Amino acid sequence: MSKTYTVSGMTCQHCVASVTEEIQEIEGAQGVDVDLATGRVTVIGEDFSDDEVRAAVEEAGYSLT
Amino acid sequence: MSKTYTVSGMTCQHCVASVTEEIQEIEGAQGVDVDLATGRVTVIGEDFSDDEVRAAVEEAGYSLT
Repeated sequence: MSKTYTVSGMTCQHCVASVTEEIQEIEGAQGVDVDLATGRVTVIGEDFSDDEVRAAVEEAGYSLT
Repeated sequence: MSKTYTVSGMTCQHCVASVTEEIQEIEGAQGVDVDLATGRVTVIGEDFSDDEVRAAVEEAGYSLT
Protein backbone atom coordinates (compact mmCIF):
# COMPACT_ATOMS: atom_id res chain seq x y z
CA MET A 1 0.00 0.00 0.00
CA SER A 2 1.24 3.50 -0.70
CA LYS A 3 -0.16 6.93 -0.07
CA THR A 4 0.95 10.23 -1.53
CA TYR A 5 0.96 13.57 0.27
CA THR A 6 2.08 17.06 -0.66
CA VAL A 7 4.53 18.87 1.59
CA SER A 8 5.16 22.58 1.40
CA GLY A 9 8.28 24.49 2.35
CA MET A 10 11.02 22.18 1.15
CA THR A 11 13.67 24.17 -0.69
CA CYS A 12 16.66 21.88 -1.09
CA GLN A 13 17.93 18.32 -0.81
CA HIS A 14 18.65 18.85 2.89
CA CYS A 15 14.94 19.44 3.38
CA VAL A 16 14.17 16.29 1.42
CA ALA A 17 16.58 14.36 3.64
CA SER A 18 14.98 15.70 6.82
CA VAL A 19 11.48 14.75 5.74
CA THR A 20 12.66 11.34 4.54
CA GLU A 21 14.40 10.60 7.83
CA GLU A 22 11.41 11.54 9.96
CA ILE A 23 8.99 9.49 7.88
CA GLN A 24 11.32 6.48 7.97
CA GLU A 25 10.93 6.47 11.74
CA ILE A 26 7.20 5.73 11.44
CA GLU A 27 6.48 2.15 12.38
CA GLY A 28 4.88 0.55 9.35
CA ALA A 29 6.54 2.87 6.84
CA GLN A 30 8.65 0.63 4.65
CA GLY A 31 9.70 3.15 2.08
CA VAL A 32 9.47 6.83 1.32
CA ASP A 33 10.05 8.86 -1.80
CA VAL A 34 10.23 12.64 -1.71
CA ASP A 35 10.23 14.81 -4.81
CA LEU A 36 11.60 18.28 -4.17
CA ALA A 37 10.23 19.90 -7.31
CA THR A 38 6.63 18.95 -6.68
CA GLY A 39 6.64 18.45 -2.91
CA ARG A 40 5.10 15.02 -3.44
CA VAL A 41 5.86 12.53 -0.70
CA THR A 42 4.96 8.89 -1.27
CA VAL A 43 4.97 6.55 1.70
CA ILE A 44 4.97 2.80 1.14
CA GLY A 45 3.98 0.41 3.92
CA GLU A 46 1.19 -0.91 6.07
CA ASP A 47 -0.51 0.29 9.20
CA PHE A 48 0.60 3.90 9.21
CA SER A 49 -1.82 6.78 9.54
CA ASP A 50 -2.07 10.18 7.91
CA ASP A 51 -1.65 11.69 11.36
CA GLU A 52 1.68 9.92 11.78
CA VAL A 53 2.86 11.23 8.43
CA ARG A 54 1.65 14.72 9.29
CA ALA A 55 3.47 14.59 12.64
CA ALA A 56 6.68 13.39 10.99
CA VAL A 57 6.56 16.13 8.37
CA GLU A 58 5.95 18.75 11.06
CA GLU A 59 8.76 17.34 13.18
CA ALA A 60 11.04 17.96 10.20
CA GLY A 61 9.84 21.55 10.10
CA TYR A 62 7.41 21.44 7.18
CA SER A 63 3.69 20.98 6.68
CA LEU A 64 1.25 18.97 4.65
CA THR A 65 -0.84 21.00 2.26
CA MET B 1 40.44 39.77 11.92
CA SER B 2 37.29 39.00 9.99
CA LYS B 3 36.48 38.76 6.33
CA THR B 4 33.08 38.71 4.67
CA TYR B 5 32.15 36.75 1.58
CA THR B 6 28.95 36.25 -0.36
CA VAL B 7 27.71 32.73 -0.98
CA SER B 8 25.07 31.89 -3.57
CA GLY B 9 22.66 28.99 -3.59
CA MET B 10 21.71 28.70 0.07
CA THR B 11 17.96 28.25 0.39
CA CYS B 12 17.32 27.23 3.98
CA GLN B 13 18.80 26.84 7.43
CA HIS B 14 20.12 23.40 6.51
CA CYS B 15 22.24 25.08 3.86
CA VAL B 16 23.43 27.62 6.43
CA ALA B 17 24.38 24.77 8.76
CA SER B 18 26.31 22.95 6.03
CA VAL B 19 28.33 26.03 5.11
CA THR B 20 28.96 26.85 8.77
CA GLU B 21 30.21 23.34 9.51
CA GLU B 22 32.61 23.26 6.58
CA ILE B 23 34.08 26.66 7.39
CA GLN B 24 34.51 25.73 11.06
CA GLU B 25 36.85 22.98 9.92
CA ILE B 26 39.30 25.53 8.52
CA GLU B 27 42.33 25.81 10.76
CA GLY B 28 42.51 29.41 11.90
CA ALA B 29 38.78 30.04 11.57
CA GLN B 30 37.61 30.88 15.06
CA GLY B 31 34.07 31.90 14.27
CA VAL B 32 31.64 32.02 11.40
CA ASP B 33 28.37 33.80 10.87
CA VAL B 34 26.12 33.00 7.92
CA ASP B 35 23.11 35.10 6.98
CA LEU B 36 20.67 33.21 4.80
CA ALA B 37 18.77 36.24 3.51
CA THR B 38 21.81 38.03 2.13
CA GLY B 39 24.18 35.11 1.62
CA ARG B 40 26.80 36.99 3.62
CA VAL B 41 29.34 34.80 5.36
CA THR B 42 31.65 36.38 7.89
CA VAL B 43 34.67 34.40 9.03
CA ILE B 44 36.54 35.47 12.15
CA GLY B 45 40.06 34.25 12.84
CA GLU B 46 43.67 34.42 11.81
CA ASP B 47 45.74 32.77 9.15
CA PHE B 48 43.00 31.51 6.89
CA SER B 49 42.92 32.20 3.18
CA ASP B 50 40.19 33.07 0.73
CA ASP B 51 41.02 29.85 -1.07
CA GLU B 52 40.32 27.84 2.06
CA VAL B 53 36.96 29.55 2.48
CA ARG B 54 36.13 29.01 -1.17
CA ALA B 55 37.02 25.32 -0.87
CA ALA B 56 34.89 24.93 2.26
CA VAL B 57 31.91 26.62 0.65
CA GLU B 58 32.25 24.42 -2.43
CA GLU B 59 32.61 21.32 -0.27
CA ALA B 60 29.23 22.22 1.23
CA GLY B 61 27.80 22.43 -2.28
CA TYR B 62 27.63 26.19 -2.82
CA SER B 63 29.83 28.83 -4.39
CA LEU B 64 31.29 32.23 -3.64
CA THR B 65 30.03 35.00 -5.83
